Amino acid sequence: MQRRSFLKKASVGAVAGSAAVAAPVFAQDTPTLNWRLASSFTRGLDTLWGTGELFSRYVREGTNGKFNIRNFPGGEIVPPLQVLDAVQKNTVEMGNSSGYYYHGKDPSLSFDTAVPFGLNVRQMNAWMWEADGMKLMREVYGDYNIINFPLGNTGTQMGGWYRKEIKSVDDLKGLKMRTAGFAGEVLSLLGVVPQQLPAGDIYPALEKGTLDAVEFVGPYDDEKLGFAKVAKFYYYPGWWEGGAQTSLYINKGEWEKLPKSYQSIIEAASRAATVTMTARYDNLNSTALRRLLSQGTQLRPFPRAVMDACWDATQKVYEQTSAKNERFKRILANYMGYRDELVPWFRIAEASYDQYVGAALSRAKK
Amino acid sequence: MQRRSFLKKASVGAVAGSAAVAAPVFAQDTPTLNWRLASSFTRGLDTLWGTGELFSRYVREGTNGKFNIRNFPGGEIVPPLQVLDAVQKNTVEMGNSSGYYYHGKDPSLSFDTAVPFGLNVRQMNAWMWEADGMKLMREVYGDYNIINFPLGNTGTQMGGWYRKEIKSVDDLKGLKMRTAGFAGEVLSLLGVVPQQLPAGDIYPALEKGTLDAVEFVGPYDDEKLGFAKVAKFYYYPGWWEGGAQTSLYINKGEWEKLPKSYQSIIEAASRAATVTMTARYDNLNSTALRRLLSQGTQLRPFPRAVMDACWDATQKVYEQTSAKNERFKRILANYMGYRDELVPWFRIAEASYDQYVGAALSRAKK
Repeated sequence: MQRRSFLKKASVGAVAGSAAVAAPVFAQDTPTLNWRLASSFTRGLDTLWGTGELFSRYVREGTNGKFNIRNFPGGEIVPPLQVLDAVQKNTVEMGNSSGYYYHGKDPSLSFDTAVPFGLNVRQMNAWMWEADGMKLMREVYGDYNIINFPLGNTGTQMGGWYRKEIKSVDDLKGLKMRTAGFAGEVLSLLGVVPQQLPAGDIYPALEKGTLDAVEFVGPYDDEKLGFAKVAKFYYYPGWWEGGAQTSLYINKGEWEKLPKSYQSIIEAASRAATVTMTARYDNLNSTALRRLLSQGTQLRPFPRAVMDACWDATQKVYEQTSAKNERFKRILANYMGYRDELVPWFRIAEASYDQYVGAALSRAKK
Repeated sequence: MQRRSFLKKASVGAVAGSAAVAAPVFAQDTPTLNWRLASSFTRGLDTLWGTGELFSRYVREGTNGKFNIRNFPGGEIVPPLQVLDAVQKNTVEMGNSSGYYYHGKDPSLSFDTAVPFGLNVRQMNAWMWEADGMKLMREVYGDYNIINFPLGNTGTQMGGWYRKEIKSVDDLKGLKMRTAGFAGEVLSLLGVVPQQLPAGDIYPALEKGTLDAVEFVGPYDDEKLGFAKVAKFYYYPGWWEGGAQTSLYINKGEWEKLPKSYQSIIEAASRAATVTMTARYDNLNSTALRRLLSQGTQLRPFPRAVMDACWDATQKVYEQTSAKNERFKRILANYMGYRDELVPWFRIAEASYDQYVGAALSRAKK
């Protein structure tokens, strides 16, 4: 991780990917600031929304209330899927969103959230903080005048809710499904008709029948959004989100004016909020799943043939996108190269441990 | 030290987990403080040692250099296994250590690190921050006048280095093995002669032949400590450390004098450092393991019969310890109850995703 040496001019370039321009800084060490953070998430989704609030609380408390960030839910001052634009234009100083919501602008933004058959939570954290992830993402967000930080990760998501069982690849044909970003492109190769909707609009669409299936996050959020009431079959895993990171956006000009102490507090607070979001999901999902199952939800793994077809379609989409976009190709190689390096190690200590404990507990229950 | 003007009283109870007692605080919002942190770890182990340094850097930067924590490696001002005592007595204001080093004082302290067949990293984070873990650990450390925070987690560790292959439970008999805390008690039921040594003393003992086997952490640290030179067989998983947490200790009296802003910065910095340590290990272990394997290390899973014998012996030790110690019994029930709740959920989305990607990559290599 790169440290910033501030207050001295010309050193702003120490931030990966940022232009090496001298920028004005505040005269005081601890200026009073009132910033606005536009979130893509709504208050009701307390894990996603709450992570942004925890971040702002750490910043406010750490600065004795001098750096005050007010969080606005999606749609209140900025539409949920326009947070990136609002931060780029400095309509708000900060945003909390997901890179893959802006996949249409630039598919490389999806690497900042999750891509099909990509990194799990821990691999993503390692790529961002200890390998090339942050540097590459700063390069991409640089096009949008944004300094980004990770701000949460949901863990591996579920594969979504389906009105009918998915027994074969053919069952995907014609399926109108809510899914964000990259997954839609892959699934459309298999006949799915993907639709991108923010959280709040999904349930009404299912009710109206304009959707046959929906994937959102996992048991805790999905239960709140009521999907179980309109779709019975709950599939896993969400192969398009092995570990979905959410992000903090800061307008670059505003970031460069911050004193170094505030920048450091932001960095620490964003990491703290990131790991806390994962802990919250891990704490809440298991009980939510048990409630759903007790109320009739049918849990299903995707059939192996469906997984394999999705894997193959994914490779095609990666090839097509790489052929059109040189930077995407370069980041993909870095990201997938990292996955290929880390995954074999994760299969040794971690997976064998988890597998043994899981099996032992299953035996103990019988 | 300029830490002696207590002019106003205020509650410091707003930071989660701290006692809600009125306590004297510094007259200034941002007093200048120079604290010492005694670590159990040596500089050479840059992941363990470096996490403490990252923490201190976040605190120093976030306070504009006013709260300055100087980190001392194990043995420099405090012996590595006496950090808890030094913080308790306020010889140093802060420590960075592992609860299970003090298993002999109180076996409940081991829950703050790892216990056999216990929680993995993410389950541990969730237990500490989102369930009852922090509250219970604060109760235990309260006996030692200490306020604790998580400060790192290694992930699932390896099962250690052995001069001879472990083909059956009988091969454990008479084995002189370095292992910390609880694992030693379990392994001794199977005939192992456990020895507790700090990191720096292990290699000399192996060289002298006073040890037959050693477990420390995982490939990255173990490679540095040179174990591969004296023991060929590298076993997995380290069932006694499914996710070993390291800890920050703060003398309670000193903690209560801190202004709320410093307390909040400590909390955020400790979470940030915790997730960063895991990312560092995840980033470094895979390449270290490849190097070890290319130099002749033989990787072996523990045979199923050995794992089962260890599982059974673990339950016996838990029963014996519970019979003697009411608080241990109560914390064990909470901790293992949490494991039993979370593990089935982790087997669904996370494990099935990891398993699919791992298998797909193996196939792709052939």
